[in-house]
Amino acid sequence: MSKKLSIGILGATGYTGIELVRIFASHPFVHIAFVSSQSYAGKKLSDVFPQMTSVCDDVLLAPDKTFGIGVDCVFSCLPHATSAGLLMPFITKNIRVIDLSADFRIKDPKEYTKWYKTGHPCPELLDEAVFGLCEHHRNEIAKAKIVANPGCYSTSIMLPLLPLFKDKSVQVSMVIADSKSGVSGAGRSLKLTSHFVEVHENFSAYSVGHAHRHIAEIEQEFSRACKKPVTITFSPHLLPTNRGILSTMYLGINKSAAECLDIVKNAYKNEPFMRVREPSDLPCTGGTAHTNFCDITFTGGENGQPVIAVSALDNLVKGASGQAVQNMNIMFGFPETTGLL
Amino acid sequence: MSKKLSIGILGATGYTGIELVRIFASHPFVHIAFVSSQSYAGKKLSDVFPQMTSVCDDVLLAPDKTFGIGVDCVFSCLPHATSAGLLMPFITKNIRVIDLSADFRIKDPKEYTKWYKTGHPCPELLDEAVFGLCEHHRNEIAKAKIVANPGCYSTSIMLPLLPLFKDKSVQVSMVIADSKSGVSGAGRSLKLTSHFVEVHENFSAYSVGHAHRHIAEIEQEFSRACKKPVTITFSPHLLPTNRGILSTMYLGINKSAAECLDIVKNAYKNEPFMRVREPSDLPCTGGTAHTNFCDITFTGGENGQPVIAVSALDNLVKGASGQAVQNMNIMFGFPETTGLL
Amino acid sequence: MSKKLSIGILGATGYTGIELVRIFASHPFVHIAFVSSQSYAGKKLSDVFPQMTSVCDDVLLAPDKTFGIGVDCVFSCLPHATSAGLLMPFITKNIRVIDLSADFRIKDPKEYTKWYKTGHPCPELLDEAVFGLCEHHRNEIAKAKIVANPGCYSTSIMLPLLPLFKDKSVQVSMVIADSKSGVSGAGRSLKLTSHFVEVHENFSAYSVGHAHRHIAEIEQEFSRACKKPVTITFSPHLLPTNRGILSTMYLGINKSAAECLDIVKNAYKNEPFMRVREPSDLPCTGGTAHTNFCDITFTGGENGQPVIAVSALDNLVKGASGQAVQNMNIMFGFPETTGLL
Amino acid sequence: MSKKLSIGILGATGYTGIELVRIFASHPFVHIAFVSSQSYAGKKLSDVFPQMTSVCDDVLLAPDKTFGIGVDCVFSCLPHATSAGLLMPFITKNIRVIDLSADFRIKDPKEYTKWYKTGHPCPELLDEAVFGLCEHHRNEIAKAKIVANPGCYSTSIMLPLLPLFKDKSVQVSMVIADSKSGVSGAGRSLKLTSHFVEVHENFSAYSVGHAHRHIAEIEQEFSRACKKPVTITFSPHLLPTNRGILSTMYLGINKSAAECLDIVKNAYKNEPFMRVREPSDLPCTGGTAHTNFCDITFTGGENGQPVIAVSALDNLVKGASGQAVQNMNIMFGFPETTGLL
Repeated sequence: MSKKLSIGILGATGYTGIELVRIFASHPFVHIAFVSSQSYAGKKLSDVFPQMTSVCDDVLLAPDKTFGIGVDCVFSCLPHATSAGLLMPFITKNIRVIDLSADFRIKDPKEYTKWYKTGHPCPELLDEAVFGLCEHHRNEIAKAKIVANPGCYSTSIMLPLLPLFKDKSVQVSMVIADSKSGVSGAGRSLKLTSHFVEVHENFSAYSVGHAHRHIAEIEQEFSRACKKPVTITFSPHLLPTNRGILSTMYLGINKSAAECLDIVKNAYKNEPFMRVREPSDLPCTGGTAHTNFCDITFTGGENGQPVIAVSALDNLVKGASGQAVQNMNIMFGFPETTGLL
Repeated sequence: MSKKLSIGILGATGYTGIELVRIFASHPFVHIAFVSSQSYAGKKLSDVFPQMTSVCDDVLLAPDKTFGIGVDCVFSCLPHATSAGLLMPFITKNIRVIDLSADFRIKDPKEYTKWYKTGHPCPELLDEAVFGLCEHHRNEIAKAKIVANPGCYSTSIMLPLLPLFKDKSVQVSMVIADSKSGVSGAGRSLKLTSHFVEVHENFSAYSVGHAHRHIAEIEQEFSRACKKPVTITFSPHLLPTNRGILSTMYLGINKSAAECLDIVKNAYKNEPFMRVREPSDLPCTGGTAHTNFCDITFTGGENGQPVIAVSALDNLVKGASGQAVQNMNIMFGFPETTGLL
Repeated sequence: MSKKLSIGILGATGYTGIELVRIFASHPFVHIAFVSSQSYAGKKLSDVFPQMTSVCDDVLLAPDKTFGIGVDCVFSCLPHATSAGLLMPFITKNIRVIDLSADFRIKDPKEYTKWYKTGHPCPELLDEAVFGLCEHHRNEIAKAKIVANPGCYSTSIMLPLLPLFKDKSVQVSMVIADSKSGVSGAGRSLKLTSHFVEVHENFSAYSVGHAHRHIAEIEQEFSRACKKPVTITFSPHLLPTNRGILSTMYLGINKSAAECLDIVKNAYKNEPFMRVREPSDLPCTGGTAHTNFCDITFTGGENGQPVIAVSALDNLVKGASGQAVQNMNIMFGFPETTGLL
Repeated sequence: MSKKLSIGILGATGYTGIELVRIFASHPFVHIAFVSSQSYAGKKLSDVFPQMTSVCDDVLLAPDKTFGIGVDCVFSCLPHATSAGLLMPFITKNIRVIDLSADFRIKDPKEYTKWYKTGHPCPELLDEAVFGLCEHHRNEIAKAKIVANPGCYSTSIMLPLLPLFKDKSVQVSMVIADSKSGVSGAGRSLKLTSHFVEVHENFSAYSVGHAHRHIAEIEQEFSRACKKPVTITFSPHLLPTNRGILSTMYLGINKSAAECLDIVKNAYKNEPFMRVREPSDLPCTGGTAHTNFCDITFTGGENGQPVIAVSALDNLVKGASGQAVQNMNIMFGFPETTGLL
C-alpha cells in the first residue's frame, strides 16, 4: 500500500467523530486529511479531548475551510439536515461520502419530512444513496458514491431480523423491539436527560410505541426485504452506561426459535462481525463493548408464545463509526475487517 | 399508642432485611424485638452493616434462639424452602407472619415444586396463606395469619395489569413483560453475576421467555382474577443499578391505551402508593427510588399495535420490604402509610 | 404542637432544594408555605420533579411573588450573590433565614470578594450572621437571625478537625485534605463536566492545591478556633456517584492518631449525628448516604508519618439540606434530630 | 517477521490475563501457544469469556499440562506465591518469563515475607530478576530472563516521582500518595467488597497509612534511586469504576511544581507512553482508559505548601498487561509500542 487513502471527518468532536479518529489511529491504510468542527474550529482536537493527545493533535477546521481539500472519502458525524448540506460540496466534486446522520437513509422524502420535521436538503440524491448495512448491501456499497450509515438502534434490530424477512418461507406477523441504549447514543450536547445525576442509578423508557425516528428506516428495510409493508412496535430505553445497545425482540412468526437460529446462522456464516450464539449464551452489551461485533440469539416460542431475539452491539462502533469504517473498507477494496479487530 | 407492636426479623442481614430495619427505624408504632441471622449470629447488626450504627445496634440471634421470644409478628427475609421451615415455630404459636420468600405465594404445591425444584415444607398451610398484594387483597390481609409478600418483578407486573384482568369487559390475548431490575434483587450472596466488574457498564438479559420463577405467581394471580388460565411471556434483565425495577409490558387487548388508563386510574384512585401517570410522563426507576410508590402508565395501541404499559418501583421497598410493612399496617390496623411516606 | 412552623424555600428546584422538600415531607412540625423558582415559576414542583408527585404538588412561585408571604423561616438554595439579595426582603422583615449559599459564611467582605469575584451584596449583615456548623455553634445558632449553612466539602473537613484546633494542647503544623465528591455537589445546571458520559467510568481531580472556594471558610473557622492563621492544602475530586463526600486528611500534628481519636470522641460524645469510628472501620460514602450522619476516624501517624483522618457524609444531607434543617431545629427549639432520623 | 514469537499465559482467566489476550489479538509478532487456568481447565477461553468468541477460542490447559510446551516467553497472571512456583519449570528451561504477580519485585526475601506473610518460593532467583518499570530499567529488561512487572498502584506513583528521586539536586522530605483505583484491581475472585451493590454509588478508603503491600516495592525503588531510605504514606481507595487509577501525591520537596514538571518532562521527552501535561490539564482516569498511556502533571507548592503530583493510568493496561507487553517488546527487540497504540 504505497499511498494511503485520504479521508476527512465533519463533526469530529461528537462521540461518533472521536470514535472514528480512534479507529483510524490503528487503521494501516488511512490518513486523516482533516478533522472539522464548527464549535471548536481553531483548537487542536486533543485540546478538546485530552485523551487524544499524541493520538490525534490535528487542528480542527471550520467546515467551510474543508471544502477545497482533496480527499478520497468524507465521513459526516453531523446532525441530520445539517449533514447533507455540508456534504454537498464534496458530493458535487465526486468525492465519496459516508453519512452517519439519517439524511440519506430514508428513500421517500415525504417520510423523511414526516419523521424529521424538515424538508430534505437534496431529495434528488436519495435514489443514489446506498443504505450501508454492510452484511446486506455489500455489493451496492462497493460501488456507492453516497453511503447512508444505519442508525444504532436500527442496526441492533435489523441485523437479527433481516435474514428472516428475506427468507421467503418466513411469515412475520408481529415485531416488538424493546431496546436499551447507553447515554452516548444521545450525543455530547448538553441536556438535562444526559446530566449524570439524572441518569445514574436510574433507568427510563422514552418515545415508546411508534414514535422514535429510527422506525422509519427499520420499516423501510423490512418492507423492502419481504416486499410487503411492515409495521413494528419499538420502545427505546435509556441505560445508565456510556455505551451499548441491547434489543429484546418479540416476534409473531411461523417458525420456531431453533428454525430462526438456523436461518440466521446460515445467513451470517461467513460474516466476521456477526456472532450468532446459542440461546444458553444470551448476548450482553459488555460482551461487544469497544468492538465491531454484533451478538445475536433466538429463544422462546414455546406453546404459541412469541419467539424472542436478543441482540447486543456497541452503539458507537458497530452501531455507528465501526460500521462506517467497515463500509469504507468495502467501498475502497480493503479487507473488510481492517482496523476493526 | 401506649404499647408498641413487637416484631422479629428472620434473615435480617440480606438487603430486604436491612431495608425492613431501616423502615422500622422511623415507624412510630413498632418495636424490633429481635433481628436474626445464621451467618452473623452473635455480631451486632451494625458491625455487619456499619451504616446502621446508632440506628440498630442489636445483636443478631441465631434463628433457633428466637423461637421462644414473644412477638406480635415475624418477618422472614430468608430464602425459599428455608423460610417456611423457620417460620413454623411461630405459626404454630399463632404468631402472625409475613414471608418475603416465595414459600406461601403458590397455592398449588405441585406448581411450587415444578418451579422451585423442592417439595413444599408445609403444604397444609398454603390454603390459609394470603397473597399480600395490598391494593388487591386488603380485606383478607387484615385477617391473615400468614401473608405471602409478592415477588419484586411480580409486583411490578401485577399492579398495572391486575385491574384489567379483574374487569369483565376486558379481554387480554397476550402479555409480554420486558422487565429490568437493579442488582440488589439478586441478593447479597456472592456470585460472579453480581461482581461489580461483570455488571458495571454492562446490561444483560437472563431467563427470558417462560423460565423465571415469578411467572408462577403472576399467572396464578392473573388467572384467579379473570377466571381463565393466563400465560405470560416474561424477560428479566439485569440493570447496572443498585435498586429499581422498570417493566415494559406489551398487551394484546380489546381496549385502547386510554381506556386501560381509565380503568386503572379508577381502580387506584384512593390508593396512596399508586401513582397512575399520563403517557407523556413515563415512569422511571429513579422516580420511585427509596419510596413505596409504584408509578404506572399506558400508551401505544395505535393501528392494531399492542397497548404498552410501563411501571416502575423500588424492588427493595414496594417490591419487598415496604410492601411487607404495608401488609403489617393492614394486619394490625395502623394507617396504611405509617412509616412509609 | 398546635401550630406548625411555616417555612419557605427559595431555589427549590436545585438538588439541595428538592432535598429540603423531601426532608420536610416527614418533619412533623413544619409546613411548607412556599417553594420558589425563577426558571420554573408557574409549574408544579412535581411537574419538574415527577418523583415528588403526591409528596409536594405545590406551584412554584417566582421569587418576587414570595416576599409578601408571612413565614417563620426562609431557606435559600440559590447561588451565591443572588442568594443574599433575594433574602434581604425577608431579613428586613425580621424573618429568620438559613442561607445554603456561601454569602454569609465569610466574615471579611474582602475575602469574599477575593474568592467569589464579586462585591458582597450586604456586607453590613456579615457580623450578624452565624456560621451554622451545628455541633460547634449551637448556642449562637439558637438565637441567630441569619444562619450561614456551611459548604459540603467544608463540613466534611471541619467536623473531624475542629475539635483538634479547639484543643489547646494540640499543635497542627500541616493540613492536607484530599476530598472526593459525587456529582450532585456540582448542581443541576448543564455543563460538560456533569454530562453522564464524561463522568461515568471516570475519576478526576480539579482545583487542587489552594484554589477551591471552600478554603476561605475552612481557614476562617480553623483560625478562629486556634486563634492563629491556618493555611490548608485542599484537593477536590469528582466521583462517578450521585452523592457522598469522603475526605482523607493528612495532618502534621503533635498527637498520635489514638489521641486525636480520643479528643474527637470526647468532643462528640453526645452528638446524635457524629459517629466516631474505630480505625478498623473506615468511613465510606455509602455508609452515610441519605442520612444526616457524619462518620469519622483517625489512623496512621506511625514513625513520624502524618496522622490520617477520614470522614464521610452525604453532601446533600449533612453537607447541605440536612444540616440546614438541623440548624432550623436548633433555632426554633425542636429536638435537634426531628425529621432527620 | 517470518516466525512469530510464541508465548504462553498462566492464569489467563483473571482480568489481567484476559487483557493480555486482548492485546495480543492485535500484536503482529506474537502467537499465543497456550492459555492456562486451573479452575477452568478443559473449557474454551471464549466459553468462560463469551466476549472473546472468535478472538481467542483456545482451550484452557491446566498449568501442569503447559510445562512441556516449547515457547519463547511465559506471562504469569497468577496470585503471588503460586506464581513463582508455577514459573519455575519454565525458568529452569531458560524460557524468559514476565511475572505480573509480586513474587519477583522485592529484592529482600525478608521484606517479601514481612509484607506477603509467606516464605519466598525461590529466593535464589531474586537477584536475577529485573524490576520491569520500562521507562527506568530498559537496558536490564532487554537482557532479563525474569521480569517482575510492577504493581498497578506502584506504577502510578513511581512513574511521576522516580525522575525526582533520581535527580541529585532534589531533596524529598515527604511523600503522601492518595490513590484511587477501579474494582478490577481487586481481581475477579468473589468477595463482598467487590459485590456490585456494595461498591456502586459508594466510595471507600482501605489499608490507609502504611499497610498496603505495594509500599514495599515503591519504597525499595525510591530508595535505590536516591540511595537513601525512603518512607512513604500511601492511602488506597476503591472507586466505583471498572478501571483506572488516579494518584494524587503531596510532596515535601526543595523544588517548585514548575521545576518538578521540567525535570519530569525532560526525563520522559522521548517516552511514547508518558504524557506530561500542563497543570491546567489535570489527568483523569477516563483519559487513559484502554490505553498504555500514563498522564502526569505537577502543581501546587505556593507559600510553602506541598507540591502536588497527579497521575492517571489504566490499571489493567499500563498498570499491568500493557506494561507487561511493553516489557516483552523490549526483551525481544520489537518496537516498544507494537500492539500498544
